[in-house]
Amino acid sequence: MNNSTKITSRKTEKLVENLRHFLGDRVSTATSLREQHGHGESWHPAQLPDVVCFVQTTEEVAKIVKLCTETGTAIIAFGTGTSLEGQVQAVKGGVCIDLSQMNAVLEVNNDDLDCRVEAGVTRRQLNQYLRDSGLFFPVDPGADASLGGMTATRASGTNAVRYGTMRENVLGLTVVTANGDIVKTGSRARKSSAGYDLTKLFIGSEGTLGIITEIQLRLFGVTEATSAAIVNFSDVASAAEATMLTIQMGIPVARIELIDTAMVRAVNSYSKTDYPELDTLFLEFHGTEESVTEQAKLFGEISTEFGATGFQWANKQEERNRLWRARHDAYYAGLAIVPGSRGYVTDVCVPISRLAECIVETQRDIAEQGLFAPIVGHVGDGNFHATVYLDPEDKVTFDKALAFDKRLVKRAQSMGGTCTGEHGIGLGKLKHMRNEHGDTAIELMQTIKQALDPQNIMNPGKVVDC
Amino acid sequence: MNNSTKITSRKTEKLVENLRHFLGDRVSTATSLREQHGHGESWHPAQLPDVVCFVQTTEEVAKIVKLCTETGTAIIAFGTGTSLEGQVQAVKGGVCIDLSQMNAVLEVNNDDLDCRVEAGVTRRQLNQYLRDSGLFFPVDPGADASLGGMTATRASGTNAVRYGTMRENVLGLTVVTANGDIVKTGSRARKSSAGYDLTKLFIGSEGTLGIITEIQLRLFGVTEATSAAIVNFSDVASAAEATMLTIQMGIPVARIELIDTAMVRAVNSYSKTDYPELDTLFLEFHGTEESVTEQAKLFGEISTEFGATGFQWANKQEERNRLWRARHDAYYAGLAIVPGSRGYVTDVCVPISRLAECIVETQRDIAEQGLFAPIVGHVGDGNFHATVYLDPEDKVTFDKALAFDKRLVKRAQSMGGTCTGEHGIGLGKLKHMRNEHGDTAIELMQTIKQALDPQNIMNPGKVVDC
Repeated sequence: MNNSTKITSRKTEKLVENLRHFLGDRVSTATSLREQHGHGESWHPAQLPDVVCFVQTTEEVAKIVKLCTETGTAIIAFGTGTSLEGQVQAVKGGVCIDLSQMNAVLEVNNDDLDCRVEAGVTRRQLNQYLRDSGLFFPVDPGADASLGGMTATRASGTNAVRYGTMRENVLGLTVVTANGDIVKTGSRARKSSAGYDLTKLFIGSEGTLGIITEIQLRLFGVTEATSAAIVNFSDVASAAEATMLTIQMGIPVARIELIDTAMVRAVNSYSKTDYPELDTLFLEFHGTEESVTEQAKLFGEISTEFGATGFQWANKQEERNRLWRARHDAYYAGLAIVPGSRGYVTDVCVPISRLAECIVETQRDIAEQGLFAPIVGHVGDGNFHATVYLDPEDKVTFDKALAFDKRLVKRAQSMGGTCTGEHGIGLGKLKHMRNEHGDTAIELMQTIKQALDPQNIMNPGKVVDC
Repeated sequence: MNNSTKITSRKTEKLVENLRHFLGDRVSTATSLREQHGHGESWHPAQLPDVVCFVQTTEEVAKIVKLCTETGTAIIAFGTGTSLEGQVQAVKGGVCIDLSQMNAVLEVNNDDLDCRVEAGVTRRQLNQYLRDSGLFFPVDPGADASLGGMTATRASGTNAVRYGTMRENVLGLTVVTANGDIVKTGSRARKSSAGYDLTKLFIGSEGTLGIITEIQLRLFGVTEATSAAIVNFSDVASAAEATMLTIQMGIPVARIELIDTAMVRAVNSYSKTDYPELDTLFLEFHGTEESVTEQAKLFGEISTEFGATGFQWANKQEERNRLWRARHDAYYAGLAIVPGSRGYVTDVCVPISRLAECIVETQRDIAEQGLFAPIVGHVGDGNFHATVYLDPEDKVTFDKALAFDKRLVKRAQSMGGTCTGEHGIGLGKLKHMRNEHGDTAIELMQTIKQALDPQNIMNPGKVVDC
């Protein structure tokens, strides 16, 4: 053990002692726990924090941050550990703040269609809580992520095409900043022109500017009628083109999801379903009885134009639940096809007019490289994921995946798109930031980071470290 | 003339000379022009810039900013001069950058429902440009403001209840920052998780963080059917309650506007209309034929429940244009009632559940004070304006208006609302910022301002100078 490690250790020991003063046994340095908190669900290797704290209040978070500010210790917020780009890896060690015990729904305002939750509440927990209220929260990444984590990565999911992403659905926040201040952002008014939009600045900042502890969320009324459908196409181009026309015509679909043939096969095997093994769109329509019928009719006409076959309806709640659970489990279905694998997940999003072109070129690339990389996509937003399932130890395949990702991102960016529609930057997408935003925009982001976190202790190494 | 004035003058002379080098006769120090650029449309007294520049390119703006950075000179962006809170007042003199000659629509992407415009394009100009495309841009403050100014103040208007405000409809920007860098923000993808949301940071920053020169905007397809209606109520409480239920039921009204009796009278007089002089809602429904009929039917049932009378339809385009032009001219209608007056405009926005209560208390306050302060409101958003029309020289009425505004803002803020739904902070709402956001949030805004504009030359004295 060299000197610097000893110093770090002694510093950490003192910090742990101070943390135990007010957190008691909610502080741990156990290796297994640190290991569990050092990674998300992607291929990125774990990097362990020195200590894990389980917090129960915003004030506790503020106290921890103040201690870390004094000692220049890194701080990483942790929700459910379902991030996909290495967002929770402790690249400089430090303190991991686990927010899963801050899991109270603080208030639901039925008349204003909003609610306030602690950051550790998960999306399924919130919807379970709301089940008798006639309201629901629409943003649904595949994983049952925490709403704090979803806010921090600007997550979205299948409903975003109609209801928006976390960007549109977070009305306000409580945040602990790098100096230990507790800041409340936003208001409960539906709109405001009162000063800088601090709420939006923290959404998508991945814990690099502050720790989100409470979130005011927009809710929606469950519509009178809901109908889901599955429809098959002879190729992904046709499915994507049908999607493009649906969006361009302004049909307010609630969900329009592409699952390519390879992924339908994986889903059938994992979820014990028997969907036709073809390029497929999963759809959902929300509205009054009349409007749902009308939307479905219009979509039916469009899809027929693009040679769709095998229209299947899912009008019952159980059928729909089964369908969307299968869709949400697609990532895990892919993992199950290649035992012991991790997912190298891609996440580009392009202007809707370029969607078919981008997917077709990507599929061609996958075939040429001989990769196993099924595609699913929130295609109504122009967003899709080609996930390479691989053994991270298999250097050859891994390098192929890296090169494939690089080409894919470049393709999307050259079409006016983005390297990440919803998973965030973390460690994985850092290298694509400059090409996407340009040097002056990156410098501006770095200026903001430097101003709000001059010691670079808030989730260092992420988002703007490029 | 004292010494410091002389120094300022000499400094300004040198700056003007440098500006003329590349702007030629597009630089002016004429008093009448400076006077015209020193105020908006509200009661706030004019404060003149030292010089006005008419720019034609982003690069010219960058050059001006660099010159001002070298000399520590204040810079104020100017669009149409229709702001209502003293946003363009040159409190420290300096250079006014008039962007009205940057008025090109740069591109319209029909297939992606977006477009890119220079900052001086006005909302009516854009919609005129789009008239044969089947697309429109929905955000519509009363004035025919520039889209740069609307972005800078996070403006909205009558359509926001369905289509959102500038916050939701700006996809990306070109901005010249305080060091003269040209920064491009956002992407053309419908969603992105790639780093800090710089676009949203500039929306609503009122020129205090940078000068917006280009804007990527979301567009919408003109719906198959449009129908407008006017309906009268016996009091504002009933009109507000009918609105609340409409929103809570999720009826996707495109517009739902309150005009109180006093304002209907002013409108009839100014716009030569003959609307019944009662508390009134102006509405518009967008959608397919079926959906418009359905929305109107549902709204009809709700309004009848609240004692509505005199339902009038406006199905023809000319009738609708007349109706909405009258609504948009309401501010000018009020000014015409009190010759020589200016408007002391208020702009609170509250959670929808508190709307009726807030309006009723405000009307009582107006009556008690004997003020002439008609109310109009984008009530579907919980936003309304009680405007006191007064002679700014009439100290007694002015002080009454000030005190009334203070009580109104406090009332709204105590209901979880905001001091400004859409007009911004400027000089007028500065004093309400701390109560609304709290000290830590204000400090955070000031930290951002300080980092991005360390010399405080970008529209000094506004937004965060509190």
